[in-house]
Amino acid sequence: MSLAAAVGTEGQEVPNRRVILKRHVTGFPSEDDMEVVAGAARLAVPPGSAAVVLKNLYLSCDPYMRGRMSKQNRRSYVPAFVPGSGWPRCEQSGGIWAPGFQGWRSRLGMTGWEEYTLIPNQESLSKINHPEMPLSYYTGVLGMPGLTAYAGLYDVAKPKKGEYFFVSAASGAVGQIVGQLAKLTGCYVVGSAGSDEKVKLLKTKFGFDEAFNYKKEQDLNAALQRYFPEGIDIYFEHVGGTMLDAVLLNMRMHDRIAVCGMISQYNLEQPQGIQNLLSLIIKRVRMEGFMVSDYLGQHHKFEEEMVRYLKDDKIVYVEDVAEGLEKAPAALIGLFTGRNVGKQLVTVTQE
Amino acid sequence: MSLAAAVGTEGQEVPNRRVILKRHVTGFPSEDDMEVVAGAARLAVPPGSAAVVLKNLYLSCDPYMRGRMSKQNRRSYVPAFVPGSGWPRCEQSGGIWAPGFQGWRSRLGMTGWEEYTLIPNQESLSKINHPEMPLSYYTGVLGMPGLTAYAGLYDVAKPKKGEYFFVSAASGAVGQIVGQLAKLTGCYVVGSAGSDEKVKLLKTKFGFDEAFNYKKEQDLNAALQRYFPEGIDIYFEHVGGTMLDAVLLNMRMHDRIAVCGMISQYNLEQPQGIQNLLSLIIKRVRMEGFMVSDYLGQHHKFEEEMVRYLKDDKIVYVEDVAEGLEKAPAALIGLFTGRNVGKQLVTVTQE
Repeated sequence: MSLAAAVGTEGQEVPNRRVILKRHVTGFPSEDDMEVVAGAARLAVPPGSAAVVLKNLYLSCDPYMRGRMSKQNRRSYVPAFVPGSGWPRCEQSGGIWAPGFQGWRSRLGMTGWEEYTLIPNQESLSKINHPEMPLSYYTGVLGMPGLTAYAGLYDVAKPKKGEYFFVSAASGAVGQIVGQLAKLTGCYVVGSAGSDEKVKLLKTKFGFDEAFNYKKEQDLNAALQRYFPEGIDIYFEHVGGTMLDAVLLNMRMHDRIAVCGMISQYNLEQPQGIQNLLSLIIKRVRMEGFMVSDYLGQHHKFEEEMVRYLKDDKIVYVEDVAEGLEKAPAALIGLFTGRNVGKQLVTVTQE
Repeated sequence: MSLAAAVGTEGQEVPNRRVILKRHVTGFPSEDDMEVVAGAARLAVPPGSAAVVLKNLYLSCDPYMRGRMSKQNRRSYVPAFVPGSGWPRCEQSGGIWAPGFQGWRSRLGMTGWEEYTLIPNQESLSKINHPEMPLSYYTGVLGMPGLTAYAGLYDVAKPKKGEYFFVSAASGAVGQIVGQLAKLTGCYVVGSAGSDEKVKLLKTKFGFDEAFNYKKEQDLNAALQRYFPEGIDIYFEHVGGTMLDAVLLNMRMHDRIAVCGMISQYNLEQPQGIQNLLSLIIKRVRMEGFMVSDYLGQHHKFEEEMVRYLKDDKIVYVEDVAEGLEKAPAALIGLFTGRNVGKQLVTVTQE
């Protein structure tokens, strides 16, 4: 079946399965907290409106989504989901259907975890400027995680050639990209990950200088001293907790911690306390949090640079693809157990 | 007795009491960890050397000294003291005696907690450019604490007119100055302190917009919400611990925490864990540590500006003066119980 055929015809009512959150989650989430339910969508939009119907092809699974599964609290990035409703506003790339369109177009946007999403204003969707690239890349290296790595590195961490760069969760969607960009800048790059398979990937496929399996280290401080005998210039923070405390003991003078995420803390009702913040004074460290949503103005420049790097094989990209919407809950849970190898996404419909 | 007479004559042997650390300290320090011992000094320097003998007039008591009383660990700013020896390198202002000098000159430098200190190279001492100001001010508003406030505010926190500014330990040596400088910049300034007397001082003498006694607050988060209903733009951090965790919940977007010290943590073997660092991401906060020693090049500019503010009554300054070297141990301990009101110093010899 061609994609155009899959999108359907105007006015048609089509089945529309979607993933819903059954209840707000406390502690570690499980697949059972979510449910795939049946439904229907009509391939029609209000006459004269700017609305379109998006047929969703690829869903993105990202750690930040865990925050939205909790009853809202002040530690979360974004508003909580309402149990019983779908997953609103998750980045996806999709085929689009709309009266004014000739056939379908690829677009990128925040939609539901469902087969079809009515988008009230098509202007809220982004164009896919390089349809020659795999469309799924727009949920990762060419989408939000890629821009996160790009903006966090150049605007927050500000690396210089020869600096010692450390990234945790290094084989993930952001980690693999930021480590490779730091290498291109001329940094010495070390990554940590949670399995030997991922460590191997970092050293062989992504070209990191060193990598280690943090689960095999009794003492993270000792591990960091081994990999950074002269200390760390830049830490790109994805995990928080004991890794952050160990990093704080191993920073060099006047260095930077770009705080992108703290995945080790998202399922804890009470976060682990960080004890070594006095290092911020001793080492004059700048520790700075950021969110990709502040850098959307850079998306076009980023997209052009990243496409060039990918075409020139200067950046390689690894995805972990779950096939089918019914696999989405497990794929999301897998982020927190480290099951995924590379960027986790879900294919809703085959292109 | 005039000061010139008190300095003594060349070659004379004079009594020289000094404070020594009896043992490395674990946990909360006590007066008994220090001792005032008798000794002697000769008012002579090696012929042809750049050495001078400094007669110490004012000793500075500063929280950072606690770190030096511990057996060295990676959390301390500066090298540990050696038990049995004196307190090396504590800022003082003193009358100076040396063969090449006509009489005595006032100088500022890092010396021992003692009556006389042999300074191997007089170039290591700073001049007192404004002898018309009280000499004791050079241990505070015109010395290291004043420069700490100045550099931390303008170089790290970078305030803008109209911003909401919060400082903890606000009546202390740095706090009282940084709060008044922030007011001069046009910020809305709130300080916390540990007694009603200090709170009154902040509001009446130093002209803070608001101040509160943190010891009377059951819930620091609620207190900050009350004083900053729109959130905090800049936090000037002196205390760490639960106050920092509460501040992290009350920051505005794209704001700054200038980390100057964390006095609540200095006597703890295991620091309190900070749990709300995820706020760094949510609010895009820049949290940056600094040390005054990186800003010594600004000292002259700072001194001129601060003298002008003092002469114009735009900045007022409160000292807590202990009379006599034998009071120095208690004065230092008092910093950690909050006994001092204003900058704590010790007069060794009356001018």
